[in-house]
Amino acid sequence: MKVHNFNAGPSVLPNEVLYKASKALIDFEGSGMSILEIGHRTEPFVAVMEEARNLVRELMQLDDDFEVLYLHGGATTQFMQVPMNLLESSETAAYVDTGVWSNKAIKEAKLFGFVDVVASSKDSNYNHIPKQFNIPPQASYLHITTNNTIYGTQWHMTPVTDVPLIADMSSDIMSRSMDFNKYSLIYAGVQKNMGAAGATMVAIRKSMLGKVSRKIPAILDYKNHIDNGSMLNTPPVFAVYISMLTLRWLKEQGGIPAIEKINEKKAALLYDEIDHNPLFRGTVAKEDRSLMNACFIMDKPEMEEEFLKFCKKEDIVGIKGHRLSGGFRVSMYNALPYESVEVMVEAMKYFSLKKA
Amino acid sequence: MKVHNFNAGPSVLPNEVLYKASKALIDFEGSGMSILEIGHRTEPFVAVMEEARNLVRELMQLDDDFEVLYLHGGATTQFMQVPMNLLESSETAAYVDTGVWSNKAIKEAKLFGFVDVVASSKDSNYNHIPKQFNIPPQASYLHITTNNTIYGTQWHMTPVTDVPLIADMSSDIMSRSMDFNKYSLIYAGVQKNMGAAGATMVAIRKSMLGKVSRKIPAILDYKNHIDNGSMLNTPPVFAVYISMLTLRWLKEQGGIPAIEKINEKKAALLYDEIDHNPLFRGTVAKEDRSLMNACFIMDKPEMEEEFLKFCKKEDIVGIKGHRLSGGFRVSMYNALPYESVEVMVEAMKYFSLKKA
Ligand SMILES: Cc1ncc(COP(=O)(O)O)c(C=O)c1O
Ligand SMILES: Cc1ncc(COP(=O)(O)O)c(C=O)c1O
Ligand SMILES: [Mg+2]
Ligand SMILES: [Mg+2]
Ligand SMILES: [Mg+2]
Ligand SMILES: [Mg+2]
Repeated sequence: MKVHNFNAGPSVLPNEVLYKASKALIDFEGSGMSILEIGHRTEPFVAVMEEARNLVRELMQLDDDFEVLYLHGGATTQFMQVPMNLLESSETAAYVDTGVWSNKAIKEAKLFGFVDVVASSKDSNYNHIPKQFNIPPQASYLHITTNNTIYGTQWHMTPVTDVPLIADMSSDIMSRSMDFNKYSLIYAGVQKNMGAAGATMVAIRKSMLGKVSRKIPAILDYKNHIDNGSMLNTPPVFAVYISMLTLRWLKEQGGIPAIEKINEKKAALLYDEIDHNPLFRGTVAKEDRSLMNACFIMDKPEMEEEFLKFCKKEDIVGIKGHRLSGGFRVSMYNALPYESVEVMVEAMKYFSLKKA
Repeated sequence: MKVHNFNAGPSVLPNEVLYKASKALIDFEGSGMSILEIGHRTEPFVAVMEEARNLVRELMQLDDDFEVLYLHGGATTQFMQVPMNLLESSETAAYVDTGVWSNKAIKEAKLFGFVDVVASSKDSNYNHIPKQFNIPPQASYLHITTNNTIYGTQWHMTPVTDVPLIADMSSDIMSRSMDFNKYSLIYAGVQKNMGAAGATMVAIRKSMLGKVSRKIPAILDYKNHIDNGSMLNTPPVFAVYISMLTLRWLKEQGGIPAIEKINEKKAALLYDEIDHNPLFRGTVAKEDRSLMNACFIMDKPEMEEEFLKFCKKEDIVGIKGHRLSGGFRVSMYNALPYESVEVMVEAMKYFSLKKA
């Protein structure tokens, strides 16, 4: 029996994807080989890679200047690969600090050039998204983290600027309609909304490239990956395959606009309970609440252990908050069924009645 | 029905591994979650990672100075990560050039310091391993490629030197007994003998670290990965799991000494046919022949297409040579059954009789 999986990532995947992949692991499309045993430069796998890249392009409606890559290394590699490719050592990049992940990105950028942290919500333990800040017009780019997985905040507007916009969308990619074409580079570890751990999606404008003078190692050079059709070296074959299946599933659901409606319904159901249930309280500014990761605490912290145990019996998994923000974090990525949120809310209601 | 899979990598895997993984993809050890859906910092996955790291240590009998890491990025990332971590910009590293992969490693090292190519078999299209060369005693390290996947050559001795030895063992790791403790760093993409594409194994002596002055990005710093138990960021969960299962399988076979005997038998069977069959001819110096990748051509090149077609009908897959060396390349990694080599040899015999 499947549990209700609220993991922050790696996280729940569509059952269809898992069943299809489970079969491909024994025999991939009648080839007499497992998906793990086929050559990555053979026609069947090149087709998988191309379908994945094209689905990203189609679902996000990216314009022709964009190239889509599936890379190794996780989003953490992008923290350094972005400035290595785009920040000249004499230039300045602007970053907004909205938590742990932004901070890691900032730290890596400092190895390559100057960094201007134009805004931060650190003083309030990252419980909101900074609204007022100035972006130096000569900045090489502005980097934001659209969804802050640990704190449960999310950007609900896009900064208006002429500076190229770069976003870490690891934890809310393809969960809501956005004008992705306003960005110059978007990256995301695929292990939340786009598949399983082991690959990173990078969508980059070709017009951003070729502007820095440093020598870039082959494996870290975006241009090199583009020229090689995202197949510079052996790609993470299975992770790309799972992502392709997950994007196919998303398309079948009706794409981003359709999943967005469901994500809004799931989040509304949970936040409504958090707000009305006297035992629980949300930790972030209402207008900045994340639709992906809902963070909340109990007014009586000594009850938290008990509630966790109670949830465990209900087959609810992965709701313990990150140690930096405490309490609970309920992640509701694209593949999380609405029913799981209903079960979660029922558990909150029932626990509250028991304690009344 | 399974084909006879002679792919150069990604390549054939043990059936046991595939069946186990196929089940874990639906439900991982009764957790109610797929292996793709579990948190990487939860106890069950940390156990997988630790078992994989310990199996490497045990099978290779590494001494206590070694740390074993599973990293992202493929062996190609190691081409730059090795010099970034170990080559001071004012120092020189020695490399032996035995083909395409050595060359890529050399090219990346030049971005970080001086490179002395102490020997090369380029002039003879890499058909042998250089035997006589001097290693400058002050070199930071000597880098070799123990098995040259494209040309089918393999080092059958270890260079004797006081300089730290570094080896790319991507295509012969764990295929034969070696004194791995003679090395200071060993790396291998796991997609040939150690699992499926998506992870890279690095075994590194702790005593090699902390000697360069450059600042290293977090994700590229070996020390950082060691300090974080090979879990600095979200690891390639499934690729690590497959590698762990593959190493379990290897251990059950009797470990490296046992698989080595089978590998020797497989290679002897094939090379014997190449030598005795009048239609075929090996392309590399006999003493340097690889037990993993056998490269050979036909005396009448116009027959090659026909032989390939004939093999295809016999469910023989992946034997076309790399475009740089032409002819045929038959890869016989650990998981390739002896029976597959028998089928290959039968095909060669039969084809030769037909043509006689
Ligand atoms: C917003 C965000 N950025 C970056 C990362 C780091 O991703 P990875 O572990 O793939 O390097 C995470 C991981 O959870 C994340 O949530
Ligand atoms: C000896 C050797 N080194 C390095 C590589 C590159 O490995 P990866 O594709 O994992 O980067 C290969 C790939 O086949 C190889 O055979
Ligand atoms: Mg965060
Ligand atoms: Mg409340
Ligand atoms: Mg080679
Ligand atoms: Mg012959």
